[in-house]
Amino acid sequence: MTTPQEMLIGEARARFGDKAVVTETADIEPWLTDWRGRWHGSSAAILQPQSTQEASLIVAKAAELGVALVPQGGNTSMVGGATPPEDGSALILSLRRMNRIREIDQGTMRAVTEAGVVLQALHEAAADEGLRFPLTLGAKGSATIGGLISTNAGGTQVLKFGTMRGLVDGLEAVLPDGTVHDGLSGLKKDNRGYSLDQLMIGAEGTLGIVTAARLKLFPAVSSRAVAWLGVDSPQAALNILRNLQQATDRIEGFEILPQESLEAVLGHVSGARAPLSGNFPWQVLVEATVEDPDDEPPAELLARLLAPLIERGEIADATISSSEAQAEAFWRIRDSLSEAERATFGPATQHDISVPVDAMPRFMEQAAAEVSRALPGVHASGFGHLGDGNIHFHVRAGTRGGPDWLQTEGPIVSRLVNDLVTAAGGSISAEHGIGQMKRDELQRLAPERVKAMRAIKSALDPQGLMNPGKLV
Amino acid sequence: MTTPQEMLIGEARARFGDKAVVTETADIEPWLTDWRGRWHGSSAAILQPQSTQEASLIVAKAAELGVALVPQGGNTSMVGGATPPEDGSALILSLRRMNRIREIDQGTMRAVTEAGVVLQALHEAAADEGLRFPLTLGAKGSATIGGLISTNAGGTQVLKFGTMRGLVDGLEAVLPDGTVHDGLSGLKKDNRGYSLDQLMIGAEGTLGIVTAARLKLFPAVSSRAVAWLGVDSPQAALNILRNLQQATDRIEGFEILPQESLEAVLGHVSGARAPLSGNFPWQVLVEATVEDPDDEPPAELLARLLAPLIERGEIADATISSSEAQAEAFWRIRDSLSEAERATFGPATQHDISVPVDAMPRFMEQAAAEVSRALPGVHASGFGHLGDGNIHFHVRAGTRGGPDWLQTEGPIVSRLVNDLVTAAGGSISAEHGIGQMKRDELQRLAPERVKAMRAIKSALDPQGLMNPGKLV
Repeated sequence: MTTPQEMLIGEARARFGDKAVVTETADIEPWLTDWRGRWHGSSAAILQPQSTQEASLIVAKAAELGVALVPQGGNTSMVGGATPPEDGSALILSLRRMNRIREIDQGTMRAVTEAGVVLQALHEAAADEGLRFPLTLGAKGSATIGGLISTNAGGTQVLKFGTMRGLVDGLEAVLPDGTVHDGLSGLKKDNRGYSLDQLMIGAEGTLGIVTAARLKLFPAVSSRAVAWLGVDSPQAALNILRNLQQATDRIEGFEILPQESLEAVLGHVSGARAPLSGNFPWQVLVEATVEDPDDEPPAELLARLLAPLIERGEIADATISSSEAQAEAFWRIRDSLSEAERATFGPATQHDISVPVDAMPRFMEQAAAEVSRALPGVHASGFGHLGDGNIHFHVRAGTRGGPDWLQTEGPIVSRLVNDLVTAAGGSISAEHGIGQMKRDELQRLAPERVKAMRAIKSALDPQGLMNPGKLV
Repeated sequence: MTTPQEMLIGEARARFGDKAVVTETADIEPWLTDWRGRWHGSSAAILQPQSTQEASLIVAKAAELGVALVPQGGNTSMVGGATPPEDGSALILSLRRMNRIREIDQGTMRAVTEAGVVLQALHEAAADEGLRFPLTLGAKGSATIGGLISTNAGGTQVLKFGTMRGLVDGLEAVLPDGTVHDGLSGLKKDNRGYSLDQLMIGAEGTLGIVTAARLKLFPAVSSRAVAWLGVDSPQAALNILRNLQQATDRIEGFEILPQESLEAVLGHVSGARAPLSGNFPWQVLVEATVEDPDDEPPAELLARLLAPLIERGEIADATISSSEAQAEAFWRIRDSLSEAERATFGPATQHDISVPVDAMPRFMEQAAAEVSRALPGVHASGFGHLGDGNIHFHVRAGTRGGPDWLQTEGPIVSRLVNDLVTAAGGSISAEHGIGQMKRDELQRLAPERVKAMRAIKSALDPQGLMNPGKLV
């Protein structure tokens, strides 16, 4: 007897050729596990359409046969959002062959790209035209536009440019019944009711498959500079940011990390050097950029704006990159942090959380104290996008820990941190999404929000075939 | 026997007092007709909650009793979006008593206002803090924040600041079951799935009632200048805009109108004077603003940037306002246009449409020609927000017309224009929404979009009680 999955696989092969179907176990295997190795799934095939039309036909046929689909881009989800269910009930729908940049228009400063375009490829194509797509993050060499949209990705330049939601000027998607929603028109104004474009952003593939997008581009940067500061507290860091933002709109990045995290990087990454000679409780990275080469160079801008703060003692020490290589080296410290912490301190529960920006310094202090009170001996600290009110809050075993601490006390810690975030009016997922990892916690903490989302999900995907087990 | 409507009215009065319920016919009457007098409805009462909690209880009770509700703000819809059904099956839910500005924060440059706040009141409150809410339009003295959000309003400053969708930083709404969705947290990053905030924007009250919003503010303008240009064609006008935009980001308004429209204003509005002495086929209004008083004054900026275009003959003639009074006078010409045209030329079919910006000059020419070919004798022309790809395209009877022309040939004209817009990849509603007026046309021209919207509508409002007969 032929199963519905086999029928779908056969149909895709017959209509779109061998390249559209992967069934070799060895070829499927890498796509069954998330990139941090926390979730493992099973799937009989990867379907790989090479056009919107092929994607539409596959989704329509899957709906007819009742076969579930898990969309995949670069498989870089931090929350198991692209890993298929363990029971093999779903096929993977990979967008990787839909990797054309359809258009880059200098006049309107827009790119139209397919979902499978890797972020770095878009960076490079935009740069070739003297333009820039500003969103960037560690996984830029693998993450795809479709995945970045479906997770409303953030990254390090949100401070100035916002998340993916603000950079999408329209999108194309295959809805669960196979219908193609075409939002690529490039209209500046369109008031024909609910925004399906906006609904697909951050939907984690549960309402359909994003196949292409029109994205906003910006003038290329002519130069940048990165300052590294030593400060006393997150509150001092935030005051510095507010000072800078009042004086200029050229601050793009503002990241904070504790001294111990810097030390972990220095001990773990070969060739890494401390930007400052002294020790300071908190370290801050500030990036400034300019587009127009006639404008004040960013290193001079930073020096001018930081000087009075150093004078007043609000910054303990500071250095400004004197070359692009040095700017890169500063960013490498920041980007190596997660890995270095894991290697140095062992496993930790990791919480991608946000609260209102002005509330974050106090939250960091209070949450660390609360966690230590509840579980004496653990060590809690946060780092990351202070200017966005978004930090990655990590709690490690400290003196409580055995090798299985993450399994035994990890869930208790997560619930506690999520409770604290919720009490502070924050979000238990600032930029990584919900996926499999946070689904139960979202249901526990925001049941009414989940109820509304489930209603929408059921309306557009009544069979529940789109990325089952994620988000809702 | 007590009807469900009477039960709801009684309950609202008992719980929230007499001020929460209007049942006098004379007091209800003005709210039963849209402000252009094209739609007339019927309703037994206006319910007027004064808090989110009261609104929530009214909506929950209405859901329980199966009573439909029509939300109203300033009742300035251009498409009958706030007029109740004729059969009296719905009660009006007015937000006008929810008119508190809860907060204006200079640090974060955000305002939190209730839905019933009139746009002009927000303008004034922001100005008192040295800030500005940039969206503005003719009805600013009546239109409310809730209505502006529910219709994703546009207006004259979209060129620089975008529509309401881009100015909302979160909102609070009562969902059809009475649940309160609280999106006012002010989080810069929040990835907990579908954006209910975005779903409510432009939903025309069909998915629930917007009760409050967090809005983006900007630094107050220190000065502005308005230039008036005579040009040969819409294409020439668009070229001028592109030139200006490449040189500066200080252009806020860019409006186009034909000579005959200017003449209609001059003949209709007492005291109105022609900005230029000669006649030119097309007239253009350009507004530039500056925030920092140390920056180049906007009149000098415009003079500097327009000079080479005049030199090259791309602008036939130009004048720049030399005072705030003159700037006001130029805008008054633009703002009086619809009324003056109606008074001078008689009724016209009116089409608020958009196409991609660069396609608009050609569209204006071709659409006017097509309409004249199909219906010889009519007169078609467009004016408005050329820089947004959004014009108001009007067709009047010309030599075909009797007094009932609008009724007899109007629908034929509308279908023709909407077909042309759709063929050009445009939208049949750029900024006014769908309401009652364009519902059938949307269904005819975008059935798949309507199908997806209906599914969402049914999911969140299974009884169909929220603003029945509008949009979907």
